[in-house]
Amino acid sequence: MRYAADLDDIVAARERLAPHLAATPVMTSRSLDALAGRRLFFKCEPFQRGGAFKIRGALNAVLSLSDEEAARGVLTHSSGNFAQALAIAARIRGVPAHVVMPDDAPAVKVAAVRDYGATITRCPQAHRQEVADRVRARTGATFIPSYDDPRVIAGQATCTVELLEQVPDLDAIIVPVGGGGLMAGCALAVHYLSPDTRVVAAEPLAADDAARSKALGRVVPQAAPRTIADGLRTGLGVHTWPVLRDLVAEVVTVPEDEIITAMRHLWERLKVVVEPSGAIGFGAALQPALRNRDDLQRVGVILSGGNVDLDRLPF
Amino acid sequence: MRYAADLDDIVAARERLAPHLAATPVMTSRSLDALAGRRLFFKCEPFQRGGAFKIRGALNAVLSLSDEEAARGVLTHSSGNFAQALAIAARIRGVPAHVVMPDDAPAVKVAAVRDYGATITRCPQAHRQEVADRVRARTGATFIPSYDDPRVIAGQATCTVELLEQVPDLDAIIVPVGGGGLMAGCALAVHYLSPDTRVVAAEPLAADDAARSKALGRVVPQAAPRTIADGLRTGLGVHTWPVLRDLVAEVVTVPEDEIITAMRHLWERLKVVVEPSGAIGFGAALQPALRNRDDLQRVGVILSGGNVDLDRLPF
Repeated sequence: MRYAADLDDIVAARERLAPHLAATPVMTSRSLDALAGRRLFFKCEPFQRGGAFKIRGALNAVLSLSDEEAARGVLTHSSGNFAQALAIAARIRGVPAHVVMPDDAPAVKVAAVRDYGATITRCPQAHRQEVADRVRARTGATFIPSYDDPRVIAGQATCTVELLEQVPDLDAIIVPVGGGGLMAGCALAVHYLSPDTRVVAAEPLAADDAARSKALGRVVPQAAPRTIADGLRTGLGVHTWPVLRDLVAEVVTVPEDEIITAMRHLWERLKVVVEPSGAIGFGAALQPALRNRDDLQRVGVILSGGNVDLDRLPF
Repeated sequence: MRYAADLDDIVAARERLAPHLAATPVMTSRSLDALAGRRLFFKCEPFQRGGAFKIRGALNAVLSLSDEEAARGVLTHSSGNFAQALAIAARIRGVPAHVVMPDDAPAVKVAAVRDYGATITRCPQAHRQEVADRVRARTGATFIPSYDDPRVIAGQATCTVELLEQVPDLDAIIVPVGGGGLMAGCALAVHYLSPDTRVVAAEPLAADDAARSKALGRVVPQAAPRTIADGLRTGLGVHTWPVLRDLVAEVVTVPEDEIITAMRHLWERLKVVVEPSGAIGFGAALQPALRNRDDLQRVGVILSGGNVDLDRLPF
């Protein structure tokens, strides 16, 4: 069976992104290793442009368009990091970006997207697809989904390609899963490049659709979850689910208070500003499911982003 | 005139530290550059072992001792980062560390020093020197001052040596000044290795003894200052003052609220957990004294540490 991206797609994505994005650093901490009982290698996407991994997929999609398509602009709907990522990607390519944002999107996020030069349309969250369709009809812009898209998944895969080059011989990689763009990119990169590495997906216990989907062998829809990990409230997509089903070894769920504890440890010891969704991989490393495994000595942990509102810290 | 360290001392320190400390990264941010109106290169000491630059000087001093001296142990008094740094340095050399800490030192800092294996003696702050003298008489341990010491200054200089190698052609470097160990190391490294680079010292307006000392041409004692930058409350020393007087171009003072704003910008944009004392260099870059200078296009900013109490954030 063929997945959303094959190795050629991922290699092509890497070449497209290379002139624009530097590899993010991998950081380590003796004290966090001691807490987890193994060596951890933190792939630090908070240092990525836009403060999260999202630019990888957005930029790969935008750079994949023909000149003619690109000239008509790109379009997405998003309340969060992907909106900003697409705006940056469009600016890099020098084409228009249209972003449909919900009426209740935080003002700072709307301002950030506008600062990157995107044209913003506000609407009620429930109408976002129909409003996006109208913008598309009017402008001819290409719609770029935030995660359930082969070009986006191939772009997100470059994060794990870098990690595998930066740290050889990883026994496992822990990756957050929400909609699954980053997870799918990670699992596909591992599948092609380091098949003996175990891929572990981490999600909030309060938004455990991926764990339940995997257990049941079919996609369980995400109800409206209440979790501090706002990047992980989305359900799986048609491109991301088969990868979770086939190429991810297990899903580890993390309670809310342990997401916050993990985030705090990362701030205190690693000195990296990580958002709750970004910290969940370390939270998973501290769960019994992983703590009790002696065979996983060298574990990569993808810290997916660092866009947090300092006025609303959970500690 | 001869200063606390010559180039050979600094080169020797670098060689001593190299097996134990990796070079800390230099980070950049387009949005922070835009705020400052020039290109900034942030030398990130929060990622240093112990969370601050202090380990450089402590370790150079400990590794400079003869085997016989070292075997009797090392000793300091400190309420903060240097206590932890000396404990780590002693553990690296495998010798005993004794730390005199004030009764009101934060419990987390005391615990951190103890975790590194140091023997702690608590006493009222006013009696710290006499208590340290007693420990020295009893143990034969070598006293290591936290900043006013040639070995410590040579160690702190390695931070700037790295920065000069990582970023060529800096027009200026901004360095925090409290007691002056980091400042003196920085200015001496620049003096020997990049004499056309302008050294700017940054201090709190509420603890402006360095600015006043430089203006008057003599050391003005530090009164008990009230500043959030707890690492910069110390006065100048006999080894650090001549360097400030002769080799630092200017001292820029930063009001309290602008220290906090600078810290917040660094957390939000650079995603690095920086403490107030560590953020002051960026605060200085935003002051009129530097904002209005068109000749300083490429400026290094030393972010000296990231040990902050997350329960007492100023924002």
